[in-house]
Amino acid sequence: MFTATYTIRLHDTDAAGVIYFAAVLRIAHDVYEQFLEAHGESIRATLEGRTLAYPVVHAEADYRRPIRLGDQLSIRLDATRAGEGSFTTRYTFSNGQGEIAAEASLVHAAVDVTSGRPVPLPDAMVRIIIDGHSAS
Amino acid sequence: MFTATYTIRLHDTDAAGVIYFAAVLRIAHDVYEQFLEAHGESIRATLEGRTLAYPVVHAEADYRRPIRLGDQLSIRLDATRAGEGSFTTRYTFSNGQGEIAAEASLVHAAVDVTSGRPVPLPDAMVRIIIDGHSAS
Amino acid sequence: MFTATYTIRLHDTDAAGVIYFAAVLRIAHDVYEQFLEAHGESIRATLEGRTLAYPVVHAEADYRRPIRLGDQLSIRLDATRAGEGSFTTRYTFSNGQGEIAAEASLVHAAVDVTSGRPVPLPDAMVRIIIDGHSAS
Amino acid sequence: MFTATYTIRLHDTDAAGVIYFAAVLRIAHDVYEQFLEAHGESIRATLEGRTLAYPVVHAEADYRRPIRLGDQLSIRLDATRAGEGSFTTRYTFSNGQGEIAAEASLVHAAVDVTSGRPVPLPDAMVRIIIDGHSAS
Repeated sequence: MFTATYTIRLHDTDAAGVIYFAAVLRIAHDVYEQFLEAHGESIRATLEGRTLAYPVVHAEADYRRPIRLGDQLSIRLDATRAGEGSFTTRYTFSNGQGEIAAEASLVHAAVDVTSGRPVPLPDAMVRIIIDGHSAS
Repeated sequence: MFTATYTIRLHDTDAAGVIYFAAVLRIAHDVYEQFLEAHGESIRATLEGRTLAYPVVHAEADYRRPIRLGDQLSIRLDATRAGEGSFTTRYTFSNGQGEIAAEASLVHAAVDVTSGRPVPLPDAMVRIIIDGHSAS
Repeated sequence: MFTATYTIRLHDTDAAGVIYFAAVLRIAHDVYEQFLEAHGESIRATLEGRTLAYPVVHAEADYRRPIRLGDQLSIRLDATRAGEGSFTTRYTFSNGQGEIAAEASLVHAAVDVTSGRPVPLPDAMVRIIIDGHSAS
Repeated sequence: MFTATYTIRLHDTDAAGVIYFAAVLRIAHDVYEQFLEAHGESIRATLEGRTLAYPVVHAEADYRRPIRLGDQLSIRLDATRAGEGSFTTRYTFSNGQGEIAAEASLVHAAVDVTSGRPVPLPDAMVRIIIDGHSAS
């Protein structure tokens, strides 16, 4: 379990006056990056390592309540192993009234960068995912 | 059924060298906007009407193959009614080799703008969705 | 004078491995929104007031050094009145080595929302801009 | 001289009901990418060559008239050499009434990818820029 906050900025919104739907998934991934950093990992380090990558292979979001410019959201991340070579991160977006405004999830697969083929999650990543989970 | 094309631009990509995952959903919505226009509708007209809106209530995407800068994608939209007051648009992204590179779907709910409450799909929108579907 | 920090996220980057140039201007505007909030103002309040708006009428940015994924930037905002009805916000982006990585500026004009015509800056906004400036 | 068209999409707009200012610069760069492709070049080929790059070192935009969701813009690109090792692309955005809605310009510098140092524009790029210019 990991928690972050985010204030909705003008660029997140659209002419309908609320958040543009895909921004919720971008914010989720921003929180994933913060989660990695909080555990001593980063996408940059992964990319520079040039051996493994964890691309998003599935993404989804449900929109429960309008999210508006200036809204201060609390986002909770829960990570779980999803199989031998993948993990899922779930995101719960709560608004200032404590209501769930949106939910999202990302499935990441471990991939060998050279071959492009799936590989088992390395132990270091399993510990991050499990640690994140067990801390809840 | 409706088809559009899109060439991946630099802003769609990220430091991993491929498309940023959420861009697939944004491109899907761009195609939805083209689909509406091809049927004489538009989000702008809907917003200016100030009575109904069709916000995205669920979005999801599956990533099948790497999508890179400059890739020319063909995107097929299939629309189906999903219930009394909602419809689903599905997107199949094919690359230059005719392979499916990604799939996405958006669920839109008809909402009364003033009350924020769900309403049945108006006939005009049903015809667009059904026409789009029957044209396949 | 106002200072904020920002960590470069994957969505800010592109396939060239560095920040996508327009993201610098978006981050500048994010800092402007934080600056307004720190002074008890917000774009949301302005929009809801429906009388005045402060649209960006000019934007520019200079890119001095590569900005990469995960870089932690410090951004300093300096605001100055630019005329009877406009103000300029300047942004200096410093990297972790204290080097200037980018600079940006935005010119905002006060506009009457109904008529679309320029108006003098209201006193409340002058104080925010001057306060911001004098605090440096 | 090169011309492209673009229809403003929901993701380009913000809660103020018009285009988000930085989207104008992104659209300008999209047109630059189309311009390169029309001349047999591309950023992808440049990146894969791994010898030279043409990063944006300066960007600016002026906003003349409101640009709204669904607006169909015509964008004219004019390219000029700006020095031994750089070139400028200027963008004029016209709306459906033939009015100039925005103007933008990007300055690109030729850089050796390995050393990060400025280099003279290669002849092939000079021809593209000059050809583009002379075609006007």
